[in-house]
Amino acid sequence: MTAAPTSVSVFGPGLMGGSLLMALRQRAPDIKLGVWARRTAVVDELKLRKLADFGGTDAAAVAADSQMIVLCLPVEHLEKVAAEIKDVLPRNAWVTDVGSVKKSVVETLEKLFGRGGCFVGSHPMCGSEEAGLQAARTDLYQGALCVITPTSHSNPQAVRAVSALWRTVGARTIEMEPAEHDRAAAIVSHVPHVAAALLVELVRAEKPSFRELCAGGFRDTTRIASGSPDLWAGILSSNRAEVLAALRKLTAAATRIEGALQSNDTDALRAFLAEAAQHRFEILSRS
Amino acid sequence: MTAAPTSVSVFGPGLMGGSLLMALRQRAPDIKLGVWARRTAVVDELKLRKLADFGGTDAAAVAADSQMIVLCLPVEHLEKVAAEIKDVLPRNAWVTDVGSVKKSVVETLEKLFGRGGCFVGSHPMCGSEEAGLQAARTDLYQGALCVITPTSHSNPQAVRAVSALWRTVGARTIEMEPAEHDRAAAIVSHVPHVAAALLVELVRAEKPSFRELCAGGFRDTTRIASGSPDLWAGILSSNRAEVLAALRKLTAAATRIEGALQSNDTDALRAFLAEAAQHRFEILSRS
Repeated sequence: MTAAPTSVSVFGPGLMGGSLLMALRQRAPDIKLGVWARRTAVVDELKLRKLADFGGTDAAAVAADSQMIVLCLPVEHLEKVAAEIKDVLPRNAWVTDVGSVKKSVVETLEKLFGRGGCFVGSHPMCGSEEAGLQAARTDLYQGALCVITPTSHSNPQAVRAVSALWRTVGARTIEMEPAEHDRAAAIVSHVPHVAAALLVELVRAEKPSFRELCAGGFRDTTRIASGSPDLWAGILSSNRAEVLAALRKLTAAATRIEGALQSNDTDALRAFLAEAAQHRFEILSRS
Repeated sequence: MTAAPTSVSVFGPGLMGGSLLMALRQRAPDIKLGVWARRTAVVDELKLRKLADFGGTDAAAVAADSQMIVLCLPVEHLEKVAAEIKDVLPRNAWVTDVGSVKKSVVETLEKLFGRGGCFVGSHPMCGSEEAGLQAARTDLYQGALCVITPTSHSNPQAVRAVSALWRTVGARTIEMEPAEHDRAAAIVSHVPHVAAALLVELVRAEKPSFRELCAGGFRDTTRIASGSPDLWAGILSSNRAEVLAALRKLTAAATRIEGALQSNDTDALRAFLAEAAQHRFEILSRS
């Protein structure tokens, strides 16, 4: 058993951070909740809603009072905030993040936090095309998968504490190496995002009248393309080697389907579609 | 005003045909409903459920009693059934279909039915990955778009009657030329289907552990890949020239994104994602 931290602070209360505060308040009412945000108004709102017991706009001051710090910031902003808090962390305080890319983040933050492996990366896989505190909800993590990415430098206590935190809010946890996580995320999330955006742009380039025909299938297939452009440009850029490799596999496979269409090989098309339908069923029924 | 037909027969009571019978029974209880199916048991079930007043497995016999015939069959089966009924149609009986591909279907069936332009193509855009009579529901057509594809050969009365039929069950109707419909369907529906199947196969080709990470975004993006392989192989094959052209546009666009990733052009990635998010909003808010 890992003792629950007496205080957890969220740095960046958007969809992920705000939902974490809501879930912790409901499921672990004994934990003191802290918040760091850029704007005082956001801190005040969270205190008013009883979702934060302490907090402010001074990162070091908030960190100094926190046993567990969850950095819920876009990947490109993590380093700056981490640098501001690294020297004031209480003894046996642990730090994690919620970024969609892990290798570069873990390398940077492990080096930065140094001493004792207090940083362990997390990626709770329940983001959505929505964003911001107004989209936060108590059950965001319920039933979601959270990938924890410890390394040989990680403090085992930190790994246990971070995993326990996510389980407290209802997530299942698995451990993966950071590089392995990034390969997997490129395949199951980042390239699907690119594909969804490409499908939107395919329609956009055609006559306006074609848009009339966009029905439920198009809506679902492209839903993730409504995600935050800033957030996703950061994700794709941070994970560009893996995204590029996966996207090339996708275009190579598309070229094979083009060949089947060109030669009107209906059997090959049927086999391709039958395998995809069967595999989708297998992939999504494993949990 | 177009007088409602006194009898409407569905040939092939699956998801589309079964839903049409249910909707007509509810919204137009004065219309006699007929059904043709391959198996007597299906006809009997529909009669028992009061969704058919007459019908059987003899296509010509059912057609002879019908003022409006709706062929709800996979595109590759349309010609055979149409040939069986073409000589027995009552005077001023109209025929339509629900196929996802129109140019080849309309050319074939217009020639086959000949006299008077009694055939007019339809494509109600509300199919789903579900299939079969058990998936049918009364409100399938409610709010859906139905594309009607008349030609210069079509009898104007038939066009009005077919449009009125779809509006009776709650659909909006628009008219498009068959070839134009097929270009649009390739862009908004057929290529997204191929892309969804390609994304499933991308995951499938990787380590089984990657599947653990498939979350809600993957589920939505690939939902249509669970559609009937037989149905969709027929659709892709029938519309292969347009699907091929659209798929090539998609892979060309993907290659441009690969270039932006390779040169780590985050501004280009952000612009691409921002346009897609904005355009998706515009495309889907037009209705």
